[in-house]
Amino acid sequence: MSGSSFGKAFQITTFGESHGQAIGVVIQGCPPGLFISQAVIQKALDKRKPGNGPASTKRKEPDTPIIMSGTFEGKTTGTPIMIMIENKDAKSKSYTDIASVFRPGHGDYTYHHKFGIRDYRGGGRASARETAARVAAGAVAQLVLDPYQIRIQSYTIGLGGIKTKSFDANAIDKNWLKCPDMEAAGKMEKRIEEVKLQGDSLGGIVEITAANVPAGIGEPVFDKLDADIAKAMMSIGAVKAVEIGAGIGSTEMTGFENNDQLTPEGFVSNHSGGILAGISNGDKIIVRVHVKPIPSILKAQKTLTDTGQPTIVSTKGRHDICAIPRINKVCESMLGLVLTDHILRQKTTGKNY
Amino acid sequence: MSGSSFGKAFQITTFGESHGQAIGVVIQGCPPGLFISQAVIQKALDKRKPGNGPASTKRKEPDTPIIMSGTFEGKTTGTPIMIMIENKDAKSKSYTDIASVFRPGHGDYTYHHKFGIRDYRGGGRASARETAARVAAGAVAQLVLDPYQIRIQSYTIGLGGIKTKSFDANAIDKNWLKCPDMEAAGKMEKRIEEVKLQGDSLGGIVEITAANVPAGIGEPVFDKLDADIAKAMMSIGAVKAVEIGAGIGSTEMTGFENNDQLTPEGFVSNHSGGILAGISNGDKIIVRVHVKPIPSILKAQKTLTDTGQPTIVSTKGRHDICAIPRINKVCESMLGLVLTDHILRQKTTGKNY
Amino acid sequence: MSGSSFGKAFQITTFGESHGQAIGVVIQGCPPGLFISQAVIQKALDKRKPGNGPASTKRKEPDTPIIMSGTFEGKTTGTPIMIMIENKDAKSKSYTDIASVFRPGHGDYTYHHKFGIRDYRGGGRASARETAARVAAGAVAQLVLDPYQIRIQSYTIGLGGIKTKSFDANAIDKNWLKCPDMEAAGKMEKRIEEVKLQGDSLGGIVEITAANVPAGIGEPVFDKLDADIAKAMMSIGAVKAVEIGAGIGSTEMTGFENNDQLTPEGFVSNHSGGILAGISNGDKIIVRVHVKPIPSILKAQKTLTDTGQPTIVSTKGRHDICAIPRINKVCESMLGLVLTDHILRQKTTGKNY
Amino acid sequence: MSGSSFGKAFQITTFGESHGQAIGVVIQGCPPGLFISQAVIQKALDKRKPGNGPASTKRKEPDTPIIMSGTFEGKTTGTPIMIMIENKDAKSKSYTDIASVFRPGHGDYTYHHKFGIRDYRGGGRASARETAARVAAGAVAQLVLDPYQIRIQSYTIGLGGIKTKSFDANAIDKNWLKCPDMEAAGKMEKRIEEVKLQGDSLGGIVEITAANVPAGIGEPVFDKLDADIAKAMMSIGAVKAVEIGAGIGSTEMTGFENNDQLTPEGFVSNHSGGILAGISNGDKIIVRVHVKPIPSILKAQKTLTDTGQPTIVSTKGRHDICAIPRINKVCESMLGLVLTDHILRQKTTGKNY
Repeated sequence: MSGSSFGKAFQITTFGESHGQAIGVVIQGCPPGLFISQAVIQKALDKRKPGNGPASTKRKEPDTPIIMSGTFEGKTTGTPIMIMIENKDAKSKSYTDIASVFRPGHGDYTYHHKFGIRDYRGGGRASARETAARVAAGAVAQLVLDPYQIRIQSYTIGLGGIKTKSFDANAIDKNWLKCPDMEAAGKMEKRIEEVKLQGDSLGGIVEITAANVPAGIGEPVFDKLDADIAKAMMSIGAVKAVEIGAGIGSTEMTGFENNDQLTPEGFVSNHSGGILAGISNGDKIIVRVHVKPIPSILKAQKTLTDTGQPTIVSTKGRHDICAIPRINKVCESMLGLVLTDHILRQKTTGKNY
Repeated sequence: MSGSSFGKAFQITTFGESHGQAIGVVIQGCPPGLFISQAVIQKALDKRKPGNGPASTKRKEPDTPIIMSGTFEGKTTGTPIMIMIENKDAKSKSYTDIASVFRPGHGDYTYHHKFGIRDYRGGGRASARETAARVAAGAVAQLVLDPYQIRIQSYTIGLGGIKTKSFDANAIDKNWLKCPDMEAAGKMEKRIEEVKLQGDSLGGIVEITAANVPAGIGEPVFDKLDADIAKAMMSIGAVKAVEIGAGIGSTEMTGFENNDQLTPEGFVSNHSGGILAGISNGDKIIVRVHVKPIPSILKAQKTLTDTGQPTIVSTKGRHDICAIPRINKVCESMLGLVLTDHILRQKTTGKNY
Repeated sequence: MSGSSFGKAFQITTFGESHGQAIGVVIQGCPPGLFISQAVIQKALDKRKPGNGPASTKRKEPDTPIIMSGTFEGKTTGTPIMIMIENKDAKSKSYTDIASVFRPGHGDYTYHHKFGIRDYRGGGRASARETAARVAAGAVAQLVLDPYQIRIQSYTIGLGGIKTKSFDANAIDKNWLKCPDMEAAGKMEKRIEEVKLQGDSLGGIVEITAANVPAGIGEPVFDKLDADIAKAMMSIGAVKAVEIGAGIGSTEMTGFENNDQLTPEGFVSNHSGGILAGISNGDKIIVRVHVKPIPSILKAQKTLTDTGQPTIVSTKGRHDICAIPRINKVCESMLGLVLTDHILRQKTTGKNY
Repeated sequence: MSGSSFGKAFQITTFGESHGQAIGVVIQGCPPGLFISQAVIQKALDKRKPGNGPASTKRKEPDTPIIMSGTFEGKTTGTPIMIMIENKDAKSKSYTDIASVFRPGHGDYTYHHKFGIRDYRGGGRASARETAARVAAGAVAQLVLDPYQIRIQSYTIGLGGIKTKSFDANAIDKNWLKCPDMEAAGKMEKRIEEVKLQGDSLGGIVEITAANVPAGIGEPVFDKLDADIAKAMMSIGAVKAVEIGAGIGSTEMTGFENNDQLTPEGFVSNHSGGILAGISNGDKIIVRVHVKPIPSILKAQKTLTDTGQPTIVSTKGRHDICAIPRINKVCESMLGLVLTDHILRQKTTGKNY
């Protein structure tokens, strides 16, 4: 039982390595008759692309998605949709010197122990490049969410230890870090410049929300909406923690404080993050993910070779300093995939089946 | 696509409602030839039972597990193991007054919207009572983990806003809150007494660890070990956040600080929580879950009836004040189930398949 | 990956052995709000019960189904439905003499090689008794099919080498063999009496049809309607061949003869058996299964012990002479389960998703 | 829940339409470290290619498989293997005249009813061309079977009503129909020539065997080895019946005749076809499939347009006269895929797990 598929009714299967011929995704269960175009997928992929900011890798992939199957005359046909993204700017030579060295914080050591063989070029299958396939699939999923007017958004609320203190929705698109607090954004940028000079890297916190999700979505007791969201987020390489709604903060409230009381005008608060007992309650879905610093750093680190010899490694490939803001789009895509899957599943399990 | 099954190679399917005839679990994929007894399952269930402490419900269920299938002459046969726990102390009358009222913080509202019908007695399917089935299954899973000497442990590191400041492994079993810091435990107990008088409830934080997990377990890129653990934990009713290793703390470190450097003596630190790129690295698995306060409280709260009328509700059933320490055992069980599933899956996907 | 679950949207998981405490089934994905009663399940089970005819086992099980979960006030709630049937008339002593002997035609040899351990009492998990759980689930599935007026029927068209030569729908319930040709039925009965005296057994052929299945059901290219039906039928113990529509006969026709031409009045013929390219075409679904003779016979047969010693075995338990007509109901149930699963799946994959 | 995936431990997902950009397959769960080459896949595909015989289509596809992911330095890495076959010789114009007409015997009518939209070019997703992806996957599966020396073979035992009367293994490769009886082969060829002139088509019977399958493979009670084989075979477009071992013939034997008695030298007969109670018994696996005539024929047939108007259709594309012998290779591949899946599954469920 391998694990490269996600979702049940709307199911994606990704394939490909960082420096292989291509990466891509097969989408099963996409309903027929939806208008689809390369452009809408390209637009989503562009949001995941490395920017020109100081935190970005110098690897420049056009990330052009090619729809290879499952559509006819501009519409989905209900058959598997395969979207492929060729690897164009792979420079594998940069990696030969680390072919037999386990980079700290990376999957080198664990892939070696699991499979006994690994494609070391650019992280192989463990590369964040795989998430482009998720974003392409997320763009297709959004076609299912559109009629519900479900709108998914993400923004940066922490980076390198700096946290936002205010929320201005208009600010999000005014800084490349997608931060809703311009002052915090400025400090974050400075922190990145500082750490970059040290050959080091940073992590941060992303909040993702979904508005207009209908009440009643989720499949208890294991495929709860929050459980599937937690899995979706934690399956993204650098994520080390996931919160729903008040999350960690809920442990410091009493039941009276934490419970979202109900009035004819709606819920008085949204500590639940839009999910009660694993099912959406119609309120805004709120998720927070905590992203560890990029493990690839220039600073020298102790490690072992694959024959157990101690050595020193300094990662020289082309890497981001921080997964934010590229990971933000990936988080949005994963949330969209979970919601699409559950909206379709509800059609077989819910009251109006 | 309903969602009451968990795991792929070692798969459990739970059934039953709080006040139905019974709850239980069918376990598929348990290897043959393992010695099994009712006693070992009972022992696990006893750890989940309400204690005599002030935080506990007055519902006293014997929680006697009956092994209905899948064993012969004291051994597993490789066929489905069904374990049933009859509901003995169900007092459904206490619930008739809330049959048409949505209790804040509970699944009443969302079950109503999903299914259009719900068994309101004691929370029905959404009751924490369902977790007894998970604990029974976890006891069977441990039989698979035993030969690896995998040892799963949990302890309370936060409750009602009070956090532990030290760790004494011996303290854990010396206080009913399973807290490794006796001084903190004392404060937590006081906090519970205080809040109980107010007709309110509390949440907390549990850390769960697994020692001796072999390196190489986990199925990227979606069924990563940490992704499945996140789902497992978030599928437990009151859990609102899940961390792996340094978790939230990792966002405040640089890459150099956060990376676990490797030496011939092992990893220098364990910020990864024993998991790299979704695969175990042989180090201790570390998970933290953040548990919201029990939503059932005596304090009056605003809510709606199922016809949309505003009303006031005060939950009078027999409830815990805090899910801790009963939830601790459930978390251990879920971690054990994930590990067992992945240890079996590795036999088909790993290097020594 | 064990294999005791069937179906994806409407999924059943059976458990239990012939001489264990109980057999049963957990049904996941049954829509909420359906009226359900023990009586409707009992009625289905009664059709699978051994009759008083000469082909029948003397084991008399009341086969009383107990609905343990998933319903409330007489309706399904959308949560897992567990139905249990206790084993009452298990006489395990009859089997101790064959504990270490592999009965020809049975699963003894293969279970031994697969699991290294087996519950030899009455065939254990491999007993046809397990099919009672399928019939119970089939009765629930029919609740989903009822609004479509889907009607599933089966009848015997061959037994012990005797084949029907005519079809009289009214005859089916007039003979205990469920044969639509009274003359053939008479010959079949005689053949049974004859073979019974010889301590031997017989097989036969059952045709199963489903009327009013809407066009458009089935999930190519693997979960085709006919593919899932083939699996469903072949998963029944004694079945050795499955045909759809003209089946074997289609190989002797030309394309022109075999193709079902279309007119405004409908299809001119139904050689396809109601399924084209794995999807229902609205015509009657037609399936034929070929059932091998009951392997348990009094006649002495050569075999081996589980230590490889040659020996002679003569099966003395209480057995049917022929799986027909009890297997007929099981076939109906399996067809109903496949149709229900696909009708629900169509809600997520089809044009009106 | 769409249905383009097959298998659980060794899982394939196919994509693509007859006249789209490409068809292909993603293989999940292929163990790491296996030597793999394009050549071995090409060799398998060549066996499925249209021959030069009179029964063959004139569409000449090079069917060049490109391994896009999952391998490194000539070995499998344990990550998803994507194999793509581009469509080179697609002449879609031939199909525009049937864009709105339902061809009898084809999936046109049912795809229309299921999806409300269909890619009519060359049958779209329902085209037999999709089976090339299965054959490519089957070639990879064989790498897992090789160490067991499992050898899968198929041959034609019926065509256009002519059946083989003798079996000469050496004859199989001496006639393009893969028939083990040269005399029958001659008659079959004549029959094809005859029917071709009439603008008609033929069906036939293929037997597929697998030698050296270890005893103990299969997952009762639903994922039985024979149940999964039945599904695998029935999922191939033209197949209308599947038999295991004595199959249909078993219904004319008594239990004594049909049971395979056991001696120290092995089973005395193989009526079971190597499978008992859904688990392999170590004897040769024997499967027979009955293939309907190719539905695309030149002869005029009555049908309807997609707006319900009666019309006459005569299929003019490039088609085979008979699916045999091209389907033989597809059947072999499907059997190989089932065996590979179950051999891997046995590692988690069997006695030596």
